[in-house]
Amino acid sequence: MDVKLRAARKEDCREISRMVMELAVFDKMPDQVKISHEELERDGFCQNPLFECIVAEVPEEHQSRGRVSFLMPHFQSTDLCSTLSSAVSLSGFAVVGYALYFYTYSTWKGPSAYLEDLYVMPEFRGKGIGKGLLSKVAEVVKKKGCARLQLSVLEWNTNAQNLYTSKGAQDLTVSEGWHAMRFEGQHLDNLAGEAPKE
Amino acid sequence: MDVKLRAARKEDCREISRMVMELAVFDKMPDQVKISHEELERDGFCQNPLFECIVAEVPEEHQSRGRVSFLMPHFQSTDLCSTLSSAVSLSGFAVVGYALYFYTYSTWKGPSAYLEDLYVMPEFRGKGIGKGLLSKVAEVVKKKGCARLQLSVLEWNTNAQNLYTSKGAQDLTVSEGWHAMRFEGQHLDNLAGEAPKE
Repeated sequence: MDVKLRAARKEDCREISRMVMELAVFDKMPDQVKISHEELERDGFCQNPLFECIVAEVPEEHQSRGRVSFLMPHFQSTDLCSTLSSAVSLSGFAVVGYALYFYTYSTWKGPSAYLEDLYVMPEFRGKGIGKGLLSKVAEVVKKKGCARLQLSVLEWNTNAQNLYTSKGAQDLTVSEGWHAMRFEGQHLDNLAGEAPKE
Repeated sequence: MDVKLRAARKEDCREISRMVMELAVFDKMPDQVKISHEELERDGFCQNPLFECIVAEVPEEHQSRGRVSFLMPHFQSTDLCSTLSSAVSLSGFAVVGYALYFYTYSTWKGPSAYLEDLYVMPEFRGKGIGKGLLSKVAEVVKKKGCARLQLSVLEWNTNAQNLYTSKGAQDLTVSEGWHAMRFEGQHLDNLAGEAPKE
């Protein structure tokens, strides 16, 4: 399939935001999504962006059912057509996946990166798009001098785990016993309120 | 105890680097540390720093055993004096702990922060310095608009876990099943090499 991977642009944020919600539904936590595409635009496309993003797009010049079927013979074409109609850009490409990442720091290894989201629309899975996005992120962050690329995966999401481990990722929770912890909401407010004053 | 928390300065990097190694020894992975204090200086004290750091310091004007013992009656004073002698700044304070963090991004909640390291020298534990550093980081990142503060903790490090959970942190590995995964070294190189070309 003729898939194009490219750096996301500000005008992609509406589609990215739609896919963020689709991913949250897949992760079974749709009520967790609190930010809008305007916030993605503000945070990712400013002078010091808080994240970077790569999108995967497929050509869909005519939005015709036949044309789509030719490109992707195995999906439910009516469902896809209705989804695609909102996603097709002026240049005739439809965004069907994204990888969103940012730069972090390891006091052991130096500059590193974290892959926050990797998502491909269900109708386009099994065609190597996820693998393509993952390796593209690896390429970009390696060029920036990152020694590590980290991410988190849900225990039940064996498809994603298999992709990562097949490419050599180490499960640090299993091998070293790392647990992820989070402060948020009232707990974060309370903690901040306890900070020693000058 | 008269503990002062302040933003780290470039000239603290030698001490931070020493404590990074002490923390790695505590974590039972001392061979993992590959970066020097010069790299911390370069990465944390440039125009767009890759991390921020808060240090805890205690007054040690005279570096005398008696003076130190007065401040911290319960530690092994000879050990501490030898350690402190390398750590005492020109202004007469010794850096005895640090919290190193950076800014991240959640596609569900927006700007967030990650606490990479929280460390207090063994002789100074149990005095609230770790709690002070943690709440100071929470205060700083909340002021910057972060909705979340995340971190990782080792399964066997129950002291740290108790501190975090007593302050309301959620263990996402237990509650939601998140595992941390990492690509590095040859695996990251290989992955990057597989990126689709233009």
